[in-house]
Amino acid sequence: MKLPSWLTPRPLVQRVHVELPPPNLNDNAADLDRLLRLLRKEGFAPLAVPPLYIPRWVRAVRAGDFKVTVHLGYNGLQWEILDVSPGRVTGSVLAFAADLGTTRLCFYLMDLTSGRLLERSSAANPQIPYGEDILTRILFAREQENLERLQSLLRQAFNQTMESMLERAGRSSAEVFALVIGGNTTMSHLFLSLDPSHICREPYIPAVNHFPFYHGEELRLAIHPRALVYLFPNVGSYFGGDLVAGIIASGMHLAEETSLLVDVGTNAEVVLGNRHWLIACAGAAGPALEGGVVERGMMASPGAVDRVRIDPETFHVDFHVIGEGKPRGLCGSGLIDLIAEMFMAGILTIQGKINTRCDSPRIDVSGDVPAFVVAFGNETADGRDLSVSEIDVGIFLKSKAAMFTILTVIMNKVGLSFNDLKRFYVAGTFGNTIDPAMAIRIGMLPDLPLDIYQGLQDTVGLGGMMLLMDRGLLAEVEAVCERITYIELNVNMELMNEFRGALFLPHTDPRLFPSVNIPERALV
Amino acid sequence: MKLPSWLTPRPLVQRVHVELPPPNLNDNAADLDRLLRLLRKEGFAPLAVPPLYIPRWVRAVRAGDFKVTVHLGYNGLQWEILDVSPGRVTGSVLAFAADLGTTRLCFYLMDLTSGRLLERSSAANPQIPYGEDILTRILFAREQENLERLQSLLRQAFNQTMESMLERAGRSSAEVFALVIGGNTTMSHLFLSLDPSHICREPYIPAVNHFPFYHGEELRLAIHPRALVYLFPNVGSYFGGDLVAGIIASGMHLAEETSLLVDVGTNAEVVLGNRHWLIACAGAAGPALEGGVVERGMMASPGAVDRVRIDPETFHVDFHVIGEGKPRGLCGSGLIDLIAEMFMAGILTIQGKINTRCDSPRIDVSGDVPAFVVAFGNETADGRDLSVSEIDVGIFLKSKAAMFTILTVIMNKVGLSFNDLKRFYVAGTFGNTIDPAMAIRIGMLPDLPLDIYQGLQDTVGLGGMMLLMDRGLLAEVEAVCERITYIELNVNMELMNEFRGALFLPHTDPRLFPSVNIPERALV
Repeated sequence: MKLPSWLTPRPLVQRVHVELPPPNLNDNAADLDRLLRLLRKEGFAPLAVPPLYIPRWVRAVRAGDFKVTVHLGYNGLQWEILDVSPGRVTGSVLAFAADLGTTRLCFYLMDLTSGRLLERSSAANPQIPYGEDILTRILFAREQENLERLQSLLRQAFNQTMESMLERAGRSSAEVFALVIGGNTTMSHLFLSLDPSHICREPYIPAVNHFPFYHGEELRLAIHPRALVYLFPNVGSYFGGDLVAGIIASGMHLAEETSLLVDVGTNAEVVLGNRHWLIACAGAAGPALEGGVVERGMMASPGAVDRVRIDPETFHVDFHVIGEGKPRGLCGSGLIDLIAEMFMAGILTIQGKINTRCDSPRIDVSGDVPAFVVAFGNETADGRDLSVSEIDVGIFLKSKAAMFTILTVIMNKVGLSFNDLKRFYVAGTFGNTIDPAMAIRIGMLPDLPLDIYQGLQDTVGLGGMMLLMDRGLLAEVEAVCERITYIELNVNMELMNEFRGALFLPHTDPRLFPSVNIPERALV
Repeated sequence: MKLPSWLTPRPLVQRVHVELPPPNLNDNAADLDRLLRLLRKEGFAPLAVPPLYIPRWVRAVRAGDFKVTVHLGYNGLQWEILDVSPGRVTGSVLAFAADLGTTRLCFYLMDLTSGRLLERSSAANPQIPYGEDILTRILFAREQENLERLQSLLRQAFNQTMESMLERAGRSSAEVFALVIGGNTTMSHLFLSLDPSHICREPYIPAVNHFPFYHGEELRLAIHPRALVYLFPNVGSYFGGDLVAGIIASGMHLAEETSLLVDVGTNAEVVLGNRHWLIACAGAAGPALEGGVVERGMMASPGAVDRVRIDPETFHVDFHVIGEGKPRGLCGSGLIDLIAEMFMAGILTIQGKINTRCDSPRIDVSGDVPAFVVAFGNETADGRDLSVSEIDVGIFLKSKAAMFTILTVIMNKVGLSFNDLKRFYVAGTFGNTIDPAMAIRIGMLPDLPLDIYQGLQDTVGLGGMMLLMDRGLLAEVEAVCERITYIELNVNMELMNEFRGALFLPHTDPRLFPSVNIPERALV
């Protein structure tokens, strides 16, 4: 993970070593006033001090004989003193960036002095037992007690993960002066114990989009009690701070040329634009793509088939399994590969039917609907054939059609065609493993030159790290949110017509996919 | 107590009734963002929100169906939301001003809606058992535990007094949204649990002069948890927020003409200046003046002689006792009257000796030193003669000399004479009971036309109430502190020479007191 070169290094937290002129009868400013006077003169203005820490900090000024180390944080409106210690504190200033995902929490421990990433780690979101999907968790959180329980679980997971990362790095929680978090709107609400119940009902209104800065102690986090805690703002109920962090990480909001960013996760979230304008929308395209709905679908984890090749002559199947063991299922990218390869080999028709006239033992017609065997029982982890049925394919095509529809609709909204795009970012844990060549063949992504596509990994973590290293991005984030026009797709009528055409392989209108050579067999 | 007419009514706390446009698909700002947007548009910007209250307040927005009552406070840098309640909250907005005196605490319950004073009350400072004077308390507070104990005692006294005042007014603590406090530097430190130990050692440096705003909950005060708590800033160790409040109350910092304000309490604190400049100093002049050191001296309370007249022919003594009972001692103003009348009757010489040649049974030469009997045993509360000895007079003269010296020194500092003063304010619980005519006769106050003198009562309370009603004074207070040049008298060499002349009645240089006709007998 590399910070972009255009970043101005001006960290969110600054450490200064201060040597105050000792008081005398001619300069009798009080201890705290003396400290603040010097800090303000050094540019830390306006400057706020948390009242309850003053007794301790003025003692530190005396204990250090007017030589102190001060940590200051910028909260977007003003500087805040985070800590005052006697003498000269050495060692680098630490901070965390965190990706608050519905499924996984990812943490990045950063050295703000050098700008380097020290440790990264992740943990399962501990709320999963209370709902794999966001909606179930929202319903569960209707009771105040449950809302607090969900928050408490997250806090524990945050604290445990951060503490063990610090231990590995040989550092302590008191050295962590900032935490920057990117999460979707609901996850941000659950992290802060904010009522999420209006997020899922028309007109889909979050409790809060722009969060004030919190402090470590207010959220009982295992970091410095006065550490700044920043959450990227949401644009709407279905466009959260994680996406905003992604925009920042991509840099698309700075480019003269128009680009598109799609985050493929549980939802597909799309941003289109450039330095002048940004338009965004989100829609439920993901579940099947991610491998969640298809019968043998699974998350990208050991045992998942993530790459597939089919010989169009022999129908021999070559696949790769994550972790190199026997296959247990298919993850999203494996599924995309499989559908694309089945289509190219003529095993799937343009309507998404399995071509039973293909002569191969892999065409299994023993069930209610035809199926295709990716791996026979003797090759799999559970001894059962790993196959996809026509029903699975149908489910998958709905997802890919939804995805392409969302992309088409957002382009239409601004009167642009895909060819106007100079860059097409594919992000999200699943998104960035997609092979664009395969996704184009099945009509999931538009038919653009492959070098237009760019996979983005860890966009939330990167966006968070960037913000930690350049507090100027606080204003930029606000400007981006201000600039984004969010379209609520749930009520868009144009959708259904686009969707029907996109259900085909690659599409009912082949002119949209000139590079895809549809095999004869698929036209049957 | 009347607020001055020049005050701009713009209270520190504002209540607004807000009716938010309900969200829809075209205006999908989040609940909190929607509220803040409207408040900012109404001029409350920059605007801060305490993070931990957000969950509650967004629920209030929904509970009130987007109609809420918001209380906002201005902290000098920005507005803060203090509370959000569903619907329309009625009844006036309340606030307290408090005079945090070394001896007494005075409270003023104010209706910020009308600007009226609803209740006033006072209580003894509960720290007295730990030291009548400030120095003893500072020494006691060296142990952290003791410092916290002193704070806790003050808190209890504040809470008890404020609660009973609210009860009398039929109101509740949750309706109190601000508390403005004026105290001397040490008392402010003890109220906030700040180490006061450097206040009393050269170079006399407080821990803090300019306090940030606190909130009710941070000090565990029986007011609204987010109520703003403001302490007037100190100028130095011996020039506290109480004096700054007094300057504001007097309005001397706004006048084109030069005036002088002296606060006579345990110390004598003096400010000289006008709208262009202010100079201040303080010195230990008070104890004897206040009646604290003289053998039969006492505080101005029932049983204290506060007015004395002596017939220069018959030496008959006429006096007034506070509470109209039998006398037990002499308070400050009674002592000044007595010394002045003894001098005018020729019972005291210009050197402060008792003229034993006066023919009166009141001249008591039975002891080691001569004394003058104010009231014989049959007239007094304890059956003992109430008298002052030559030693008492000597102690008193030192105090009055210190006072006059301080006044002279500060005038000399700026090259002005007393005749340049257009107004001479005498403040402080003791100060404003002094009869200037008497104080001039003994050379304690300069010989100026009597209409130049103006007694000021409750200056701290008035200054606090003014600040509550006009937040614009926050900046004015800072400007006043900025403008004040504080002179440390403890190290001024000029003092001793001035002091020696001022030990006489009225002074070694009679040209300074042309209006005082020194009786023949006093020249003996």
